[in-house]
Amino acid sequence: MTRVVVVGAGFGGLALVRALGRGIASIRITVIDRTNHHLFQPLLYQVATAALSAADISFPIRSILRRRGEVEVLLGDVARVDPAAAEVLLADGDRIGYDYLVLAPGARHSYFSHPEWEAFAPGLKTLEDAGEVRRRILLAFERAERATDPEVRRRQLTFVVIGAGPTGVELAGAIAELARFALRRDFRRIDSREAAILLLEAGDRVLPGYPARLSARADRQLRRLGVEVRTGALVAAVGPGQVRVGPDTIATGTVIWAAGNVASPLLRGLGTPLDRHGRALVEPDCSVPGHPRVFVIGDAAAFPHQPGSETLPGVSPVAIQMGRFVARAIRRDLTGRPRDRFRYRDKGQLAVIGRGHAVADLGRLRGGGFPAWLLWAFVHIFSLIGFRNRFIVMFEWAWSYLTFQRGARVITGPWRPLGGDP
Amino acid sequence: MTRVVVVGAGFGGLALVRALGRGIASIRITVIDRTNHHLFQPLLYQVATAALSAADISFPIRSILRRRGEVEVLLGDVARVDPAAAEVLLADGDRIGYDYLVLAPGARHSYFSHPEWEAFAPGLKTLEDAGEVRRRILLAFERAERATDPEVRRRQLTFVVIGAGPTGVELAGAIAELARFALRRDFRRIDSREAAILLLEAGDRVLPGYPARLSARADRQLRRLGVEVRTGALVAAVGPGQVRVGPDTIATGTVIWAAGNVASPLLRGLGTPLDRHGRALVEPDCSVPGHPRVFVIGDAAAFPHQPGSETLPGVSPVAIQMGRFVARAIRRDLTGRPRDRFRYRDKGQLAVIGRGHAVADLGRLRGGGFPAWLLWAFVHIFSLIGFRNRFIVMFEWAWSYLTFQRGARVITGPWRPLGGDP
Repeated sequence: MTRVVVVGAGFGGLALVRALGRGIASIRITVIDRTNHHLFQPLLYQVATAALSAADISFPIRSILRRRGEVEVLLGDVARVDPAAAEVLLADGDRIGYDYLVLAPGARHSYFSHPEWEAFAPGLKTLEDAGEVRRRILLAFERAERATDPEVRRRQLTFVVIGAGPTGVELAGAIAELARFALRRDFRRIDSREAAILLLEAGDRVLPGYPARLSARADRQLRRLGVEVRTGALVAAVGPGQVRVGPDTIATGTVIWAAGNVASPLLRGLGTPLDRHGRALVEPDCSVPGHPRVFVIGDAAAFPHQPGSETLPGVSPVAIQMGRFVARAIRRDLTGRPRDRFRYRDKGQLAVIGRGHAVADLGRLRGGGFPAWLLWAFVHIFSLIGFRNRFIVMFEWAWSYLTFQRGARVITGPWRPLGGDP
Repeated sequence: MTRVVVVGAGFGGLALVRALGRGIASIRITVIDRTNHHLFQPLLYQVATAALSAADISFPIRSILRRRGEVEVLLGDVARVDPAAAEVLLADGDRIGYDYLVLAPGARHSYFSHPEWEAFAPGLKTLEDAGEVRRRILLAFERAERATDPEVRRRQLTFVVIGAGPTGVELAGAIAELARFALRRDFRRIDSREAAILLLEAGDRVLPGYPARLSARADRQLRRLGVEVRTGALVAAVGPGQVRVGPDTIATGTVIWAAGNVASPLLRGLGTPLDRHGRALVEPDCSVPGHPRVFVIGDAAAFPHQPGSETLPGVSPVAIQMGRFVARAIRRDLTGRPRDRFRYRDKGQLAVIGRGHAVADLGRLRGGGFPAWLLWAFVHIFSLIGFRNRFIVMFEWAWSYLTFQRGARVITGPWRPLGGDP
């Protein structure tokens, strides 16, 4: 009996489990995750901007793996890995032994050694994050409506998104549309269209991972939506109600962080080398040095062996392909064949910028506009798990497209008095 | 210019605003609510049992009243009413003057002078409540799966619902179905069908407000679903992991309170008589004694003037009819005509007990089973606000009915280690 323990049921962990087990007689797989659901992170910004509900982009891990009798799912928090004893230690004290360990714990935001910024500038990784961001965005408009001081009103109607990678670009576009369309007729004292949406990027262009021509196109589309794009804008400080960029201080009621990632702290316990993003440096077969039966995949792994790229980016196709590769590597081990080297096949990237507009970089095929958006919509619907989620997301998109409304404009969370200002 | 201030945008407050204003030239209506949404409370138990998402049964108050230029919506917390100054005081210090005040602040749970029970037995009034109850129910199954001690497992698989009014009956039925169908194949170490669902009622039958024959029918259907109904069960104590009923102590991981209500504390500040549920005793025109321009409606009002009933029940049809009546009363004032007396027209009541089963008491027409469930489904879909919500709820019900699954099985909230036991 071979015991495989998988930590994390994101894109990588799930791809591994789905690919593993076929044709292996005596295997037992234990999946450990801190949440009960697989989360479709690429659409998280739509939950944060009131277009979708949490349940539309998440699916119970147990249900996905229900028919796999050899797979066991545990809701639990992994505190530490003990490679010497070949055990995983849970926060509640349980120990789980393994023959193979696959770590796919993902990443959190990195505030560049300023952890105190997090309270003022939440990021977007979990459903809880998305709920908090939605709450802040919608409350800012409510606060502006209640404010009597024009300066407070101005501040509440200023939204700052830090970081112009795909998440930042998609978020800024979605907030701009919320203000321009969905909220437009709902207020009496403010005009929601006067909201200022600032997208700050330390580099010299938006979507730095894309070809320059597509960055320019995304930039134009963002400006058309009313987003103020500031490149070369290195954030010096984030505090209550303000962001400092060089000599400027921007007064704002809502700051969202989309600037940097750091891998799970779990990797530190391995005792193997990490890169500056806290990712484990992996071998060409995705195992960690000195522990051939411990693999790290997804955005927790720094993979420096791909010709033409420094390390692979933290995107879902990398995680999925790594998951499938490691499943193959374990199977090869069990049948006495040598492992391959992992090689990422880049099929391209897509980023959406508001209603019916996207940019696509598919290698030789590059472009933007409505066709790119259709492709984006098709790929994302198709990648969701389960008929229900696909159907509801499709319906929500069609309905939003036709009515300019948002289906999930609900503020929840503990009541805190508005008091005009955060 | 007549200023009407409405506190609370539930069924009563919203019905009032919708009925008011037609044909009155110079009126200004201010709606104040602690949340940004109107909540369809009758389906809240479905959010708590993972069948629906929060956004499916709530709708932004601003959007509902978007086309009513004379209506202003404020997100705010009313701290006090000052009838002498004819002002409403918000928690953040703002004061809002009125010519007419309509209080529709609703009710919270009452723990019969045991407020310390609330932490162990949450009730179901808000979306936050529903999220917390869903979290506790789903986590209990996860804890049972992780438990090694059979006693802990037994406790985690024991669910106690206190109070067998419509909410308690609907909740107990929905939990039983979750355990019997939706979760059935998802666990490896436990059989979710072994879960014990106890419905405790202090009175001598379930659905005490219904004719005895329908109570008996609901009771049979609950037992068929596997719910253990205990009548004459007066709860003596609720503590961590247990409920005491007479000489018995029930070990349980999840307790839900559906037993009693107390009206909003806002009413105490009026200085007028309250009943033992904290509700304001109102005059035949729904105003409070001595303040003809202050009305209390919905489940915050004790209306003792209906022939044949002690006071009217806290159900949505009463609130809606009171709202419409008060709109008419204000209009009559403004046109110099005398006010009527409020009279509730009881159109009957419906309660659902699991998949395709309900009981209906429509005066002369009484019955149960699938026809009653169809009527229930039709009435509830029709009462929801907005095409999107109607469509999605209809889809979710059809999908659940066909697949036996639940669409919103997502646990969110701050992570707390499982530790085997609550």
